[in-house]
Amino acid sequence: MQLIDGKATAAKIREEIAQEVKKIKSAGGKTPHLAAILVGHDGGSETYVANKVKACEQVGFESTLIRFENDVTEEELLKSVEKLNNDPDIDGFIVQLPLPKHISEDKVTEAIDYRKDVDGFHPVNVGRMSLGLPGFLSATPSGIVELLRRYEIETRGKHCVILGRSNIVGKPAATLMMRKGYPGDCTVTVCHSRTPNIKEICLQADIIIAALGVPEFLKGDMVKEGAVVIDVGTTRVPSDKTKSGFKLTGDVAFDEVAPKCSYITPVPGGVGPMTIASLLKNTLLAGKKEVYSIEK
Amino acid sequence: MQLIDGKATAAKIREEIAQEVKKIKSAGGKTPHLAAILVGHDGGSETYVANKVKACEQVGFESTLIRFENDVTEEELLKSVEKLNNDPDIDGFIVQLPLPKHISEDKVTEAIDYRKDVDGFHPVNVGRMSLGLPGFLSATPSGIVELLRRYEIETRGKHCVILGRSNIVGKPAATLMMRKGYPGDCTVTVCHSRTPNIKEICLQADIIIAALGVPEFLKGDMVKEGAVVIDVGTTRVPSDKTKSGFKLTGDVAFDEVAPKCSYITPVPGGVGPMTIASLLKNTLLAGKKEVYSIEK
Repeated sequence: MQLIDGKATAAKIREEIAQEVKKIKSAGGKTPHLAAILVGHDGGSETYVANKVKACEQVGFESTLIRFENDVTEEELLKSVEKLNNDPDIDGFIVQLPLPKHISEDKVTEAIDYRKDVDGFHPVNVGRMSLGLPGFLSATPSGIVELLRRYEIETRGKHCVILGRSNIVGKPAATLMMRKGYPGDCTVTVCHSRTPNIKEICLQADIIIAALGVPEFLKGDMVKEGAVVIDVGTTRVPSDKTKSGFKLTGDVAFDEVAPKCSYITPVPGGVGPMTIASLLKNTLLAGKKEVYSIEK
Repeated sequence: MQLIDGKATAAKIREEIAQEVKKIKSAGGKTPHLAAILVGHDGGSETYVANKVKACEQVGFESTLIRFENDVTEEELLKSVEKLNNDPDIDGFIVQLPLPKHISEDKVTEAIDYRKDVDGFHPVNVGRMSLGLPGFLSATPSGIVELLRRYEIETRGKHCVILGRSNIVGKPAATLMMRKGYPGDCTVTVCHSRTPNIKEICLQADIIIAALGVPEFLKGDMVKEGAVVIDVGTTRVPSDKTKSGFKLTGDVAFDEVAPKCSYITPVPGGVGPMTIASLLKNTLLAGKKEVYSIEK
């Protein structure tokens, strides 16, 4: 069994990006600039955004954090999005989700200029990915695919079973795993809460991507010998063994499953760090105007 | 075994649309108007477009056919698209594919205002479908889902195996069959040319959607007793028994497979007629501005 080290891989990607930013700067080019909008003070969101800003600094990007209180109106938020859309210095930006209930996440996401949508959540980027056209790939599925690539894990002709059909992981991961070429060319099965025989299907899988958000859902007797297991779950489970009072727990019962795997990602330190690395990659592409040219 | 009669179902849908158009007209509303751009004289394309125009007349729509010769430049074609985008009388339009090789189909498809893209091929509509947002559903997968709905075929918790990963059938059909609600909530497996064990997977399927474009690919021994089989294939196979010299042949070896099925679509007369019915439905929605409002 080989552990897939997402933390080390993400560090390597950040190093590669930092090298490229240095080159761009020394050639007199523009420093890539990522902005993040954060609404309210949710603990998870605070941590995610802080990590993104920190990662930007590490690779030499410029970063701007825009904060609103929970009582911000949808109109104010949309104005802020519009301002970033029109700011030529901002190459890409994200609006950290979730948003307060009185604000439509769909409306805000669609208001973002898709050419600056480095989260890859805008319908244009989702559609282009599905059609196999260039665009910004959403961060978590693209991080998964990058792990498979860097560990040279064979995917062609393999059966990939995806647990979960969310817009941000399950569905886009299915699209990427079934597309032509490498990593891809998988037979893909998507299971979810309405699938009656998940165990039977998982036992057929060469590759399992678990993204249900149910702690330790995937047990040892659901995985065949030699499978590759990618754990996307990150649920905060109360714990008296940690200072914070909780423990990040994946969708995989690691101790049971790991001995049967050829490769497995841990939680934490697997897919998680790759998500930010993917965001940085998208921002670099946005800065270089390699995906879309912005003419306004 | 029950035959799913796509021809009769499509006729019923056309009748429903005709009734609604009558109501709109008698209330002084605008007659829905579909335009089609046809380039060249390919036999298949001529037939498809002629059928679409005829169907428009049957339901009381206005229709406009714009023809170009094969030597039309991309620029001329894009100008024509732009003109239709800006024509307030045109509610929806399609550009019949394939286009000559010197013209980028992607570029032309993306030039269409997504709010008039009744084929549902524009990245915005593809992305919105994937995200579960309202939009124009592409015609063939939406026709398949409509057949399942009208025949009240249970999909929830069923295993749907899709043969083929094309942008116009396989991938969007997968999205629709896995979405929440009815028809949907299927466990979905997408197989394709790189799948080594298609037979084994098909034998697990409650519903098979065959869209590989390989005549009579699905044999009797690949289908379990009681399965629902939807045949999307329409390959012209040479034949000395027809006047035209060819015979439309599906992806299913019908004579072997049909006796094992609970439901099956024939070719012709199954999914084919539903595709045009879906296009008419999208045009009606476009005319009523129910999906997108157009403010320009």
